Amino acid sequence: MPGPEPCDLLVRGDVVLTMTDGLPEIADGAVAVTDGRIVAVGASNDLAARFDPADELVGGIVMPGLVNTHGHAGMTLYRGLGDDMPLERWLHEFVWPAEQRFTTPENVALGTRLAIAEMLASGTTTFTDMYFFQATVGEVAAEAGIRALLGQAVIGFPVPGCPDIETSFRKADELAATYRDHPLIDVSMALHAVYTLSPDQLRAGAEHAARLGVPLQIHVSETTTEVANCRETHGMSPPELLAETGVLRAGTICAHGVHMTESDIALLRETGAGVSLNPESNMKLGSGIPDVAGLLASGIGLGLGTDGAASNNDLDLWDSVRLAALLPKGTGMDPEAVPAAEAVRLATRGGAELLGLGDEIGTLEPGKRADLCVIDTDAAHLTPAYHPTSLLAYAVHGSDVVHTVVDGRPVYRDRRHLTLDLPATRAAVNKLARDIASA
Amino acid sequence: MPGPEPCDLLVRGDVVLTMTDGLPEIADGAVAVTDGRIVAVGASNDLAARFDPADELVGGIVMPGLVNTHGHAGMTLYRGLGDDMPLERWLHEFVWPAEQRFTTPENVALGTRLAIAEMLASGTTTFTDMYFFQATVGEVAAEAGIRALLGQAVIGFPVPGCPDIETSFRKADELAATYRDHPLIDVSMALHAVYTLSPDQLRAGAEHAARLGVPLQIHVSETTTEVANCRETHGMSPPELLAETGVLRAGTICAHGVHMTESDIALLRETGAGVSLNPESNMKLGSGIPDVAGLLASGIGLGLGTDGAASNNDLDLWDSVRLAALLPKGTGMDPEAVPAAEAVRLATRGGAELLGLGDEIGTLEPGKRADLCVIDTDAAHLTPAYHPTSLLAYAVHGSDVVHTVVDGRPVYRDRRHLTLDLPATRAAVNKLARDIASA
Repeated sequence: MPGPEPCDLLVRGDVVLTMTDGLPEIADGAVAVTDGRIVAVGASNDLAARFDPADELVGGIVMPGLVNTHGHAGMTLYRGLGDDMPLERWLHEFVWPAEQRFTTPENVALGTRLAIAEMLASGTTTFTDMYFFQATVGEVAAEAGIRALLGQAVIGFPVPGCPDIETSFRKADELAATYRDHPLIDVSMALHAVYTLSPDQLRAGAEHAARLGVPLQIHVSETTTEVANCRETHGMSPPELLAETGVLRAGTICAHGVHMTESDIALLRETGAGVSLNPESNMKLGSGIPDVAGLLASGIGLGLGTDGAASNNDLDLWDSVRLAALLPKGTGMDPEAVPAAEAVRLATRGGAELLGLGDEIGTLEPGKRADLCVIDTDAAHLTPAYHPTSLLAYAVHGSDVVHTVVDGRPVYRDRRHLTLDLPATRAAVNKLARDIASA
Repeated sequence: MPGPEPCDLLVRGDVVLTMTDGLPEIADGAVAVTDGRIVAVGASNDLAARFDPADELVGGIVMPGLVNTHGHAGMTLYRGLGDDMPLERWLHEFVWPAEQRFTTPENVALGTRLAIAEMLASGTTTFTDMYFFQATVGEVAAEAGIRALLGQAVIGFPVPGCPDIETSFRKADELAATYRDHPLIDVSMALHAVYTLSPDQLRAGAEHAARLGVPLQIHVSETTTEVANCRETHGMSPPELLAETGVLRAGTICAHGVHMTESDIALLRETGAGVSLNPESNMKLGSGIPDVAGLLASGIGLGLGTDGAASNNDLDLWDSVRLAALLPKGTGMDPEAVPAAEAVRLATRGGAELLGLGDEIGTLEPGKRADLCVIDTDAAHLTPAYHPTSLLAYAVHGSDVVHTVVDGRPVYRDRRHLTLDLPATRAAVNKLARDIASA
């Protein structure tokens, strides 16, 4: 019998939730990792005998890292700045004025670093950004060791760093060139919305993204106002206008999708576009409640997002998991709608597939990149443990995450950050927030 | 100038949220406590000069402890045992069979101890119980140092410990006698629901509670099935039947109230009954979504609850705070519905008033019992801090609580339990859960 094979990392848990088909749960399971990839998943005893790991992590539930499919990381700077007001007023009176003044590359780096700290600490291993200064965001993400889908915001009026749309396109070109073969960073183009871009601009953005070979992100049918205005101005619903202008296509990530008709949803299905569900932000802004059960039944691709911290007000994707499981039961008065395991799937494998990363992440199986998190179940609120997915959907919060591994590298370990200086980041944010508050 | 006065405890925070009228927030504030009562609230410097405290606690936000107005503490044993099924099936196939077999005084003590550990660790200083073996629950609560409103369950069929209703009445008598002047434990009578008690039994329960001088708890209009059956059987809505039988009166705590008409709500207002809102349980069981904004506008007394861990699946009242703030915004598409501070008020002062304890707890002001919790804001997800109530409603989870004080006694300190042995409790629960799962 040959001696044990070396491996970089062995992650053991009371249960390993692979999220592969049929949702197998391996009691006393383990995941072996080498060169950033999963090389084996199985019983802990078997893997311990087979491998000689250079490093080891242990915990309660080992599962794929969470994939946050929509957000504006830099906006952590504005967390709670303007609460409890309508989207349009919130954007015009609080967010956009603050952004015009404070959105510099330095501040975006700071807010993004804070966002990444919060996401890694709650088990998120991939985030999706739609914001300004994405080259900076890419640098901060790579340094922190989190996987990111960048999205240079494309908006039809001057925004921080981009006096015009052509500049945003050029920045997208630069991003695509910079991150072509990066192990952690992927690039998309983030068209803002039908109410901030003309049909010609939408068409130009879609064509540019196609030339670059990158996916599109766009806010879609978030509010009734957006839908009504789009119908009035263009005689079409937002998805219809987006189909018409070529934005709606395979791989397009439609954020929100709160107010879509059956024919809108059919358009998404036909084109291969999917939806990032952000129920907490939708409720907070009074936009409505997305029809999670209906969208699931439609068969389109779905993932979960937090949206920015300014409208959530946190980046704990577990809240979205819980809401994805609970809201359809409440609104549809159907306790069997969106079972626990389905909500957990949305936050992991569903999100990975929505972002076009389903071949690389989203499940724990040999050959995939090792993006995972470990839940500490040694807590009153996670006792007893009849079904892991039940705990995950209905009782776990971000603070229960004890280790987070991205691309095989432990970046958050024993509830401590290994790749960023949280106290220094918090101090700098608090200093800046005093200026923002008094502006 | 006289020397400083002695006091038992000084609790200092970056901000003290008193929850008194006008919601004053004291930056760099403190609360001084002696003999279990608050003796002063003010600027930290002033109180530090005035008092010589025997003990001190420090943190970010100091606020009244949370008041959980509805639950079944012993049911933590069944957390996640049967998820994602209708209330009636859940009760008949899972909960009631398990309870018939496993609900002994010892097991209720165990489940209650686990529940209390979870509640104290998340800042809850008062809980409301509706369950069996309440003498045991009272002992466990007193030992753990948490405030409790006991509620001996009264149900029209044999239940653990009570072969008939008369036995439950006698147990209520004993509880009232035992806890007449207890500093932490109060007593109520917990009539189960209109579908488990006949009108005569409801009337007898109401009369018995009146004789004892204790408030009533009852599940009211939780599901459409309950309402439809009540109308069919009695020709009245549940609140109408309860008014008719004398159950609906000043101090009665109606749990749920998801499906009430305007005239039902008017009946509650006229009689002085209030509602315990349990939105997470209502959604999970597919019962619906309570109309938090409408009930608030009606002016009836309101508090928040978690319900039992079997239908939530945790006892973190912060989830209820967040849902109370978010759900009305989502369902009513009104971002101004139930502002953050109002949701926090419901969980503290609102709950205290609903339980008839508004003179003793619910705010931080001199003369009140010192029930409070302290939030550690030194975390990524609570940075920056523009408005404390915004953080509390939209970003805080139970795990952010660092200290909990009940009746002037620190019972949870630096995130450690001082009054109960959590590892031993968890081990015993996990052992029992293996029997429950294989039954």
